[in-house]
Amino acid sequence: MSLIKEKIEQARGILKEHEIDCWLTFVRETQITGDPSLQFLVNSDLTWHSALIVSASGRAVAIVGAYDKKSVEDTGAYDEVIGYVQGIRTDLLRALAALSPKSIAVNYSQESEVCDGLTHGMFLTLQATLAEIGLQDRLVSAEKIVSALRQRKTPWEVERIRRAVEAADDIFDAVGDFIRPGRTEKEIAAFVKIEMDAARLGPAWDPRVCPSVFTGPDTAEAHYGPTDRKVEPGHVVNMDFGVKVDGYCSDLQRSWYVRREGEASPPDDVKAGFDTIVRAIEAARRCVKPGAKGIEADQAARQVLADAGYQEFPHALGHQVGRFAHDGSALLAPSWEKYGKKPLEPIEESMIFTLEPRLTVPGKGIVTMEEMVVVTRTGADYLSRPQQNVRMI
Amino acid sequence: MSLIKEKIEQARGILKEHEIDCWLTFVRETQITGDPSLQFLVNSDLTWHSALIVSASGRAVAIVGAYDKKSVEDTGAYDEVIGYVQGIRTDLLRALAALSPKSIAVNYSQESEVCDGLTHGMFLTLQATLAEIGLQDRLVSAEKIVSALRQRKTPWEVERIRRAVEAADDIFDAVGDFIRPGRTEKEIAAFVKIEMDAARLGPAWDPRVCPSVFTGPDTAEAHYGPTDRKVEPGHVVNMDFGVKVDGYCSDLQRSWYVRREGEASPPDDVKAGFDTIVRAIEAARRCVKPGAKGIEADQAARQVLADAGYQEFPHALGHQVGRFAHDGSALLAPSWEKYGKKPLEPIEESMIFTLEPRLTVPGKGIVTMEEMVVVTRTGADYLSRPQQNVRMI
Repeated sequence: MSLIKEKIEQARGILKEHEIDCWLTFVRETQITGDPSLQFLVNSDLTWHSALIVSASGRAVAIVGAYDKKSVEDTGAYDEVIGYVQGIRTDLLRALAALSPKSIAVNYSQESEVCDGLTHGMFLTLQATLAEIGLQDRLVSAEKIVSALRQRKTPWEVERIRRAVEAADDIFDAVGDFIRPGRTEKEIAAFVKIEMDAARLGPAWDPRVCPSVFTGPDTAEAHYGPTDRKVEPGHVVNMDFGVKVDGYCSDLQRSWYVRREGEASPPDDVKAGFDTIVRAIEAARRCVKPGAKGIEADQAARQVLADAGYQEFPHALGHQVGRFAHDGSALLAPSWEKYGKKPLEPIEESMIFTLEPRLTVPGKGIVTMEEMVVVTRTGADYLSRPQQNVRMI
Repeated sequence: MSLIKEKIEQARGILKEHEIDCWLTFVRETQITGDPSLQFLVNSDLTWHSALIVSASGRAVAIVGAYDKKSVEDTGAYDEVIGYVQGIRTDLLRALAALSPKSIAVNYSQESEVCDGLTHGMFLTLQATLAEIGLQDRLVSAEKIVSALRQRKTPWEVERIRRAVEAADDIFDAVGDFIRPGRTEKEIAAFVKIEMDAARLGPAWDPRVCPSVFTGPDTAEAHYGPTDRKVEPGHVVNMDFGVKVDGYCSDLQRSWYVRREGEASPPDDVKAGFDTIVRAIEAARRCVKPGAKGIEADQAARQVLADAGYQEFPHALGHQVGRFAHDGSALLAPSWEKYGKKPLEPIEESMIFTLEPRLTVPGKGIVTMEEMVVVTRTGADYLSRPQQNVRMI
């Protein structure tokens, strides 16, 4: 079964679970303003106003511009594909009137960006169109539908992510042999890109910052491209990187210590930093299980750092991974404003999370590790090969 | 001056022209739900809730998550870049209260997808946040601001597009020597991709359909990937293709006739089809000038086809080109529902349009040509080298 058929089938079950009649994805010119839900609904871009309708009762109907009809038919996932020339209004009203849904779930959400693909202009258009048949008050947020669809990974999806994780782990191993004093962040990033090309894999996020590489103290720390800064003895080097396999991402971080002349083992502050991160990740992993909340795992990791005397990290402990490196709604995070209710969403089986605490070793750099885990029936298993020790250069 | 500085400077002028105090682009996780206006505002993705504020009085302020601060500062285009850790609310309210704008233009539009980057969820968040300082009723559509910013190309932008057009025209010339009976649509597309790689250029749109190649009768006609269908004598072959130069697109179409054994010149129906398209394009170009409306050029081309006895084409005559292959708001189109008011928007100097009528030669294929023109003070000049004749294979 194709991914799209499988996910539409899954969506039908989720609609029933939430007692919602109908899920409507409403888009236009998707190269310009794409809805993240399209990844599970079509294999091509859609040009004109397009409606992809999945109903709990079973039928999946697509209404698209005439030139987009054949690509949507090719998915084999729709019971009916309607192609129009002049405008979508008539066909859309006819399809929705036939369904006569009590509620129409559409892709908007204040909480969760992956569920918020409907633009405000398109929302207004939809509202005005539905008013013609008295259905304008039926619109509700599809947040719970889209979240579940993205978060509950099918075995096929888990397998893709597992392969993306393995491929990234392998490249991390290779780059460990390449890093040495005198090499620049840009040179290290270039090495990683060559390894990716050789493995015929693309980056999991914006190639300007995938990989990102930071060597030594006083760097931008994150979300910044590699610079001409050179690796020096006494630096902690860290790298954030992931690849895509069949559209599914990995997202990992590793850190290395560059030994000074005569150092046989890492200095105490470096060793303490690495050990603390390893312990924080393992403490957090033990909190990740079905029914738990993300805030608990975040708190567990934060507590390990606090107990060891480190500042708390200024970001969430971990996020979900899927078609995007940052995916899903439930989040392993503190109750900060920018995270909304995400840290309180219940964790479910087959979700995939990162665990990525960080700390600063003064004068040496940032120690980060980012592992990935998949939620099982009773806990969470590592997908990555966890970094256990200081990696010495 | 960098592109971003130049466009923000241009935006200030447009705000004054429309007597709007303040333009606010409000986004989060822009790898997931990006706003098309970001292309003119930042060089990097933004992770957490971010506000990019340009005010008519002059100041440009960015409020972003702490890790995104340095990338935004690097643009050199903002008077102030504020980085936050826990949430955007306090800084956003402070910045807007200080401006105390009579109106706050935000990126939503029913008419124009390039002006409709604000998601409905983010609109609701903004409305709720502004309600705290009584400004929730100040929100207006930024359609006129964003349209003008995208449509009025600076000389730097026109030059990039001119180069993208030349590069695509060159590749069209090369592929004309490659097409021959027995070659498949996929092989022809592969040849084009190799030429693009050699020129170190990327495709102007989704690589699955850039180029798209159609040979002979009864194809999908448009928006569909190349197939294993083989070129045969008596086919009309057409191709739709463009490249990007520094992020700016070209979008052209060319058609060829594959001669049958013994044919020295194309058959009459093919010749008539090509001639009609050439005449339609030139008739339309003469209607494109400042102050005219797009519907006039569309009508002129449509009339040439109707007078010659052809069916009308089921799409707009032409669209604008910019950062996207389909860009801008004003459109050369009929007054069909799906085009809204776009065909009535006035044409302005320095807009760039395609002209792309099509017709079917029964039993042989689709004749299309797509030229690109730039609007001058008094008319429109070709950017492409217009196809004047039947290109024979």
